[in-house]
Formats: sequence, C-alpha cells, structure tokens
Amino acid sequence: MVRGRISGLSVRDVRFPTSLGGHGSDAMHTDPDYSAAYVVLETDAGDGLKGYGITFTLGKGTEVVVCAVNALAHHVLHKDLKDIVGDFRAFYRQLTSDGQLRWPLWKLLVDMDPRTLLSCIDFRYITDVLTEEEAFEILQKGQVGKKEREEQMLVQGYPAYTTSCAWLGYSDDTLKQLCTEALKDGWTRFKVKVGADLQDDIRRCRLIRNTIGPEKTLMMDANQRWDVPEAVEWMSKLAEFKPLWIEEPTSPDDILGHAAISKALVPLGIGVATGEQCHNRVIFKQLLQAKALQFLQIDSCRLGSVNENLSVLLMAKKFEIPVCPHAGGVGLCELVQHLIIFDFISVSASLTNRMCEYVDHLHEHFKYPVVIEKASYMPPKDAGYSTEMKEDSVKKHQYPDGEVWKKLLAARGN
Amino acid sequence: MVRGRISGLSVRDVRFPTSLGGHGSDAMHTDPDYSAAYVVLETDAGDGLKGYGITFTLGKGTEVVVCAVNALAHHVLHKDLKDIVGDFRAFYRQLTSDGQLRWPLWKLLVDMDPRTLLSCIDFRYITDVLTEEEAFEILQKGQVGKKEREEQMLVQGYPAYTTSCAWLGYSDDTLKQLCTEALKDGWTRFKVKVGADLQDDIRRCRLIRNTIGPEKTLMMDANQRWDVPEAVEWMSKLAEFKPLWIEEPTSPDDILGHAAISKALVPLGIGVATGEQCHNRVIFKQLLQAKALQFLQIDSCRLGSVNENLSVLLMAKKFEIPVCPHAGGVGLCELVQHLIIFDFISVSASLTNRMCEYVDHLHEHFKYPVVIEKASYMPPKDAGYSTEMKEDSVKKHQYPDGEVWKKLLAARGN
Repeated sequence: MVRGRISGLSVRDVRFPTSLGGHGSDAMHTDPDYSAAYVVLETDAGDGLKGYGITFTLGKGTEVVVCAVNALAHHVLHKDLKDIVGDFRAFYRQLTSDGQLRWPLWKLLVDMDPRTLLSCIDFRYITDVLTEEEAFEILQKGQVGKKEREEQMLVQGYPAYTTSCAWLGYSDDTLKQLCTEALKDGWTRFKVKVGADLQDDIRRCRLIRNTIGPEKTLMMDANQRWDVPEAVEWMSKLAEFKPLWIEEPTSPDDILGHAAISKALVPLGIGVATGEQCHNRVIFKQLLQAKALQFLQIDSCRLGSVNENLSVLLMAKKFEIPVCPHAGGVGLCELVQHLIIFDFISVSASLTNRMCEYVDHLHEHFKYPVVIEKASYMPPKDAGYSTEMKEDSVKKHQYPDGEVWKKLLAARGN
Repeated sequence: MVRGRISGLSVRDVRFPTSLGGHGSDAMHTDPDYSAAYVVLETDAGDGLKGYGITFTLGKGTEVVVCAVNALAHHVLHKDLKDIVGDFRAFYRQLTSDGQLRWPLWKLLVDMDPRTLLSCIDFRYITDVLTEEEAFEILQKGQVGKKEREEQMLVQGYPAYTTSCAWLGYSDDTLKQLCTEALKDGWTRFKVKVGADLQDDIRRCRLIRNTIGPEKTLMMDANQRWDVPEAVEWMSKLAEFKPLWIEEPTSPDDILGHAAISKALVPLGIGVATGEQCHNRVIFKQLLQAKALQFLQIDSCRLGSVNENLSVLLMAKKFEIPVCPHAGGVGLCELVQHLIIFDFISVSASLTNRMCEYVDHLHEHFKYPVVIEKASYMPPKDAGYSTEMKEDSVKKHQYPDGEVWKKLLAARGN
C-alpha cells in the first residue's frame, strides 16, 4: 500500500537545441528546440519515494507550462497518497493533468482489476458511445489470454516504426543513407514528412520507396499543412508510393474535414491517421463517430493524463480502430510505450495494423531510456512511467541558466 | 496613418472577488472570481498613443495567462505599427492573440473596404465552406443599406438580453425581485441558469415564466453540465416553459453531440446555442456544417482575436445562423458589442432572432463602460475596443498585492 504525503514539488524548464541539426523539422515546425517542463514531486515516505513528470514542448513557451504547473501545484501538495489512490476519479476531476503512481505503469494498469481501472476514468461526455458497463465488458474480454500476451510482450516487445530517417529538413543523400542503415537494423516500417512542396514530396517519396522496396510499410505525415480539398488532391499525387496512411492532413480540430478526407482516400487505399494534437476524449469520440480516422494516434503528453488515454483506448477498441501512438519529442517514447503495451495486453489483444512511433533522439538524457530490439519496444521493468531525467542533463539544459543555454544565448548576443 | 513603434508592454493580474456574492455562479462554476490579465502597450508616437487589452478568467490561473502574455510579448515589442497594419494577416499568423488598432473598433471595421477587411482573415482550414471570394461577395452585399443600418444603430442600439436576474446561486425571492425590476427597466429577454437539479430547475423556470409572462423571451443555459442523452431528457422536462434555446447542453468540444441534441429538440421547438468556449474558427466551421447549433455565440476573449471572430461572423452569415454573442465576465460586454454592431451593419443586416448578452456587472471599473438604453447596447464612440480600465481599479484589484486582495488574503489567513 502507498504511504506518505507529497511534501514538495519542483518544476524546471529544460531545453535541447535540436533546431541546430534540423531534427524534428516538418512542414509546419521548421525549427523546434525539443524541450520539457520537468516536474519532481517529493514525499515524506520513509523509503524516499519520489515522482517525476514531464510535458513536451517545442521550446518557446515552456515557461508558460512551468507557470501552469505551479498554478496546479496546490492540488497535490500536502496530499496524502492514500487519499489520491483511494478515489482516483475524484482526484482526476480536480486536475487538468495527472499524477501516476506505482511502478512500472504498464504493469500497474495490466494488473489492476477492471473495476478499479474504470474508477480512474471520467465517463462524462462519452456515455453516448461508451458506458461504464460497456467498458467493463471490454476489459473482461481482455482478461482472456492476458497472461500469454504479457509473456509475448516481454519476449518480443511491441512493434515500432521509425520517423528518424525522413525529416523534411534532411537532404536526399541523408534520407537514402538513413533508410539503408535502418533496413540493416531490422526496421520494416518508415514514415516520411510531406506537405511543403509537391514536386519535392514526389522526389523524396520515390527515393524512399525505391530504397526500402515495395514490401515494406511507408507512412506519410503532413503535420496539418493542408485545407481539406488540398489534402485530397495532394495525396492523389502521392498514392503511387503506396502509403499506409496520411497523418494530420489538416487542422487537428477538424473532425468533419478528416471524415471527408478519409472518405475521399478510400479508393486510393490510403488511411487517415491523427490524434497527436487532440486535447481530450471528446475530440477522439467524435473522430471515431464520424469515421474520420483509420489509425488513432494518442500522445502521452498532449492528451492530458493517463486517465484520459484509458478512455480513448477503450473507445478505439469499441470502434475496432487500431491505436498507433505518436512518439518522439522529449520522452514521448519513454511514456507512451507503457500505454500501448497495456493496450495490447488488456484491451486490443491484437497487433494487426498496429505499431508505435519511434524516434532515435534524446533518450540519453533519461535515467530509464526506452529499449528497442529488432524494431520493437521492449517493456520497461524499471520504476514508474520512465519519466525521470538524468540530473546532469537537466542542469545543463535548464533554461536560461544551464550551461548549454548560457553558452548559446551568449553566442547569439554577440 | 498610424505612426510610431511599440516601446513597452506591461501585463497585470486583476481579480474581482465576485464569488462572495454568488454572482456568475452556474451548474459548473460555483465560485468564480471574475478576473483578467490586463495588458498595456506603450508606443513612442508623439501623441502618446497607448493600447489596452484584457482576457477574462475565473480567478485561479490568471498568472498563467500573464505568463503567456509575456511569452508572446516579443511578437509586438519594438514593432513598427506601420508594418503591423501593412500586413495584418502575416502579423496575425505570428500570434495566438491579437492587437487591435484605431478607434472605435466597430467603426474601423465598418469603414474598412472589403478587401482590406478580408486581408485580416486567415482562411486556412475553412476554404471547404468559405473561400475568400465568397466572403468578398458577402461583404459586397453588406454594402447595400450600410449607411442606414449604421444610423439605426446610433439611434436605437443593438438589442440585448439579460443574464443578471437568474444566476443559479440566487434565491427564489431574489429571482422574482430581479425579474420584476428588469421588466420595469424595459427588458424583454431573460436567461436562466439550469442543469444542477431538475426539480429545482422546474420550480425556478416556472417562477420566472410566471413573472415575465408568456410573451417575453426566455433562454436556458446548462453550462456544459450534461451528457448527450441526459441533455435531451432534461430539456424535454423544461420544454413547457418555452425556452428559445438551451445553451451549452454538453461538452463544448462535442460537435456531433450538439448536432444530436439539436435534432432531438426540433420537435420541442427549442434551439441549441453554443460557442462561448470554442477556441477557433475550425470548431465553428464544423458546428455550422453539422447543423449543431441554431444560435452562434462568439466570445471576444475566448475566440482569440478580432480576426478570428471575423471569419466566424462570415461563416455564420453563409449558413444563415444568427450570431448572439456571449458576454458578461469582466469586460466581455465592452468588447463584444463592437463585433456584433459591425456584424449587423456590414454582414448580417438583420436583427431577426438576434441579441447580445448583457450582465450588469463590473462595468464601473472601465474607463469607457457599455451604455445600455431601453435594453439595447448603444454604439461606443470612445477610442478603441473599450478595454481600458480605471487605473485605480487595477491597482486595488491587482493580485496578490492590491489592497482588495491584501485584505482578503489576510482575512483568510486568520
């Protein structure tokens, strides 16, 4: 049983100057500095229990997130952990964000009995598509074969795809070299950024398809660049390269727009993937109702809290839409692997058309970085949600006073 | 022509302890302290030109907005006003929020030629329902009779309804007394808060309907309290009191849910009103596409910027849905009157089923408060967007060091 009270909270602004190398660039985000608001909770428990949390940002504005964390701190400070664990739903309703308890997260979720797990979820606004009883039935069915699926995960891991080969800012030579290396490392699924220039896209997609061959899986990602008719037109020009999906073809808020695009792309055999910018379960509910996506991409930070993600995983199961999480950034791979491994073991029970994004980036700053073997995520066995950063990395990248930023800012000042 | 550069920006946290009187309470917000992040821009123009802006909040978290303003300050600081005015759209795309120029705003918009006005709008993501050319046609049609409508506004004002009589926290006696007084003052349209308790709602709605009589207009507001099926069921029980609309029946993000509720309430003669929480034009686009609302409620602060509101007014015109702005809070009446007066003169050209919310509250803190005559908003003639607060009010309510808060916080400490 958990013991102790939350006795302290610190939050820090940590930034990695990724824009210097063009990493992470896409049609909309030309120079992101991958960054995070990094939270450490202290407790007065005898064993020195601590909690860690991050939210990913693109650099500018992290101080606003830091400020928001401080604004919410009173919801957790001096709280008894027993009271939080004793009524998760009530605690959740107090918060925009969330605290995660016990360790590791995927195993905690897998081992929770269905009723306890459901008690974490706020069903307000989604009962028209998923009631608590329906969710209970889904979880009950998920008990069958659970042990075997957990074993399978521990041995084989969860299938991943790579986004590291084809950022928009990379040269053709770099694209080709990275794809070739990835193939050697066992990768079979690749994502390419598109949407800035059509002729450019055609050239790059042809290069990649030729390099990886016709049997490997290729996905495309427009990062919200197009209007609805433009998306359909553009993708009809890229269909010859046989993409499995087009990701974020238009505004992430445009449910009906995604539905129109989905419908128009059926004859071309291209699915629509979206979700990394969806801020709550109500948006996902509608994307499912409107048949607006064929691949659902949760994000562990954007979709505030584990709790909110649980409701989305259950709705996706009801609609039989595969969940293929968004990852990358800072720590998103570390976090979301827990959710998708839980999804496989307890909810979806399937790997068909399912895979988790992977980006080979910034993992070295984490105390418990992801482990990838044969292009699969190996389930973490260390404590927590894999959020803890190395103290040295935090110190160096703290903004604006860490040594990395001090140097960079001084150089810019000259 | 505008001259000068933006030479300084200050932002302050100003809070009014409205929760002490139960003002503003509804089914979801039981104790709001109406507050604002208050921004003052200074210029180096010879005439001492200044700019003012606020964003309304419910108290807690205003410091986060203050922090966000500071994060965006670099977009405006040291900018030449000519460069901003010279390419509004480019400037707008840099910002989440917006600066408003020249004075008063409604008159500036009314006098802008259609092409210049359109150049303020970002059509990305809405061309599937409204192209720039269609918008141009709407504005061209709006030129006919414009002079007469401006004259009409200056003489008669824009029709208002009152929300001040029936907050959820008011006693029956207070309700009755306030409705009676409002009738004497010439009010003919009333809104009542519902959604916390059905029997309570029935009693209060009966009391109000009996007090105002069968001919006056009654609206109901649930402030997002219900799930979709619950909303339909609940409103079928309140239909006998003949509400014109039910406002925010469920999650503000639930476009398809609002469409389902709208459809179900048609036989009862009740419309659905929503929009005060909609954060961008893409959400409004879908609400219109899905026939999810019969009354569209823009909010001058929530829907970031004047520019974004312009695109929504034009889409509403295309779909022939009346715009009935949300107001109240701190300064929302002062701001949104500009938008709806512009809408009448240049876009909708109609008052049918149209009215602007009014709450009799906190206007005394503004340098140019709204003027209500015979239950109508009289067009402001003073400079700007009517946002400037009295310096003394700001000083007293600055959080946490203003005299009002110093006293309150000290008292709570005891």
